[in-house]
Amino acid sequence: MITTSSKIGVVGIGRMGANIARRLKEKGFPVVAVYDTRAEAAQTLAAELGAEAAKSLARVAELAEAIITVVTDDAAMRKIYAVKGDSLLQNACGKLFINCATITPKVHIDMERLAGQRGAQSLEACMASSITQACQGALFLMCGGAKEAFDVARPILNAMSQSPRYIGSAGDAAKVKALVNMVMNINTAGLAEGLGLGHALGLDLALLREVFSQTGANSRVLETDGMDMQNREHECYFSAAHAAKDSGIALSLAKTARLNLPLAKAARQQYDRMVRLGLGELDKSGIAELTFRGRGKKMPAKK
Amino acid sequence: MITTSSKIGVVGIGRMGANIARRLKEKGFPVVAVYDTRAEAAQTLAAELGAEAAKSLARVAELAEAIITVVTDDAAMRKIYAVKGDSLLQNACGKLFINCATITPKVHIDMERLAGQRGAQSLEACMASSITQACQGALFLMCGGAKEAFDVARPILNAMSQSPRYIGSAGDAAKVKALVNMVMNINTAGLAEGLGLGHALGLDLALLREVFSQTGANSRVLETDGMDMQNREHECYFSAAHAAKDSGIALSLAKTARLNLPLAKAARQQYDRMVRLGLGELDKSGIAELTFRGRGKKMPAKK
Repeated sequence: MITTSSKIGVVGIGRMGANIARRLKEKGFPVVAVYDTRAEAAQTLAAELGAEAAKSLARVAELAEAIITVVTDDAAMRKIYAVKGDSLLQNACGKLFINCATITPKVHIDMERLAGQRGAQSLEACMASSITQACQGALFLMCGGAKEAFDVARPILNAMSQSPRYIGSAGDAAKVKALVNMVMNINTAGLAEGLGLGHALGLDLALLREVFSQTGANSRVLETDGMDMQNREHECYFSAAHAAKDSGIALSLAKTARLNLPLAKAARQQYDRMVRLGLGELDKSGIAELTFRGRGKKMPAKK
Repeated sequence: MITTSSKIGVVGIGRMGANIARRLKEKGFPVVAVYDTRAEAAQTLAAELGAEAAKSLARVAELAEAIITVVTDDAAMRKIYAVKGDSLLQNACGKLFINCATITPKVHIDMERLAGQRGAQSLEACMASSITQACQGALFLMCGGAKEAFDVARPILNAMSQSPRYIGSAGDAAKVKALVNMVMNINTAGLAEGLGLGHALGLDLALLREVFSQTGANSRVLETDGMDMQNREHECYFSAAHAAKDSGIALSLAKTARLNLPLAKAARQQYDRMVRLGLGELDKSGIAELTFRGRGKKMPAKK
């Protein structure tokens, strides 16, 4: 039984994980353990939250009743739920796992099975928002798994999101999430081309963005990334490397479904190119570095 | 001097031109002449509006004080302003030309020069809206040319648009317009891929569209075309053939500027493919026919 006083563990304390931990603490949950492969980051956050910087994954599962995981990719997800060696599965019985990473749908399905075999419940809770929303408990959460697990997790989900939504069985939320990011990445790469060409043509980019916003060129990424592209402000909210990964997940699904998606491919190639150029840790808006004339070789010095 | 009782001619009475003529008539302008290469269409509209179905372009320029042109492409534009043979330039002295077609910027520049040599004023007034807005006088109008021509044209522009905006010299509005449509086409092609893959994965498309609308995948084309893509409702507001043409204009500008725009290229190739498949007269939303499994070979019979 999960309540608003259930003990929480958080595994993976990057930009999103750390702020989810802070938010839950703020809402009164006892955050008892945090874990990260970067031990120093874990210690700093643990000190801030009065939690234990767990030395092992098994220790997180031992201390906490509900464990929220926000890791990088499929490999990291398989590692924290490894069948052998240190793993969250070691003290899993009776626990609830909430997995927030954007990963391949099948990994969620496998993980649900492994957890179920050990008497644990699990839920995928894919996030389609960024750091600000994590801090404010306003994440857009798409949940997949057994409906029962969703209901059990509600006290925690409600602290993370104003309206967590149940999408379907394990893997389905990850599919929706992959599609969201695939389309977002296409729109972002396309916007960078529009503004980059406008710049090359000598147009007033503020006017151009304003015209875009009033017409069929309007998009959410125009609002969030348009000015940043113009001003080369690429402080990372959602990294180009993550964008490349997520478009890759969607393209794998497309390949299995035998669909040819040329726009998604082109967007992925652009984000892959950013990674190759050493720009993978820029925000996704940094894709404008590839399309504005004279940019891309190096970023301007930080002010 | 153009006033709200100046005599109007309209050249090119397709979906947009005809409704602009109707709107001006409704606002009290005497629409004295209409012209189209499809003589029958011109006669029908002329009868409706009490105008003359002009037999020649020279006759339109003779009858009208202000001539609005809404033709298909560069070639059509060069033809109506031909230096030799039947042409709007033949009775151009003292007239005002307002050119609304989406064409190559340089054609606007050439045309302005030709008109100026004959003592006429001209203005490009690129439209970033569709039929409904043409009927309601709510077009988003981007104007390029001499500021004086923009001021002279105001009584007419105000009947077509709630806030016509002056972008810059001749050709600049066409550049902005090409960029708007380039980005719109990318977003549309990307949306079709997202919904098409969602369909192949067995996801609930209404739910998927709703999630897109709440996240970084949101866009104007999601609002205008998302449901149509799902339901195969491709009645033409803005044709795939026009989308192909406009992306082509933008890509020509990019080539001259030596910019590589892979998303714009991919979108253009998709729209070109529609044209090759005989789907060019579907609405731009028809691009979903290329990405949904089992579609594209033929459209379902009309209900």
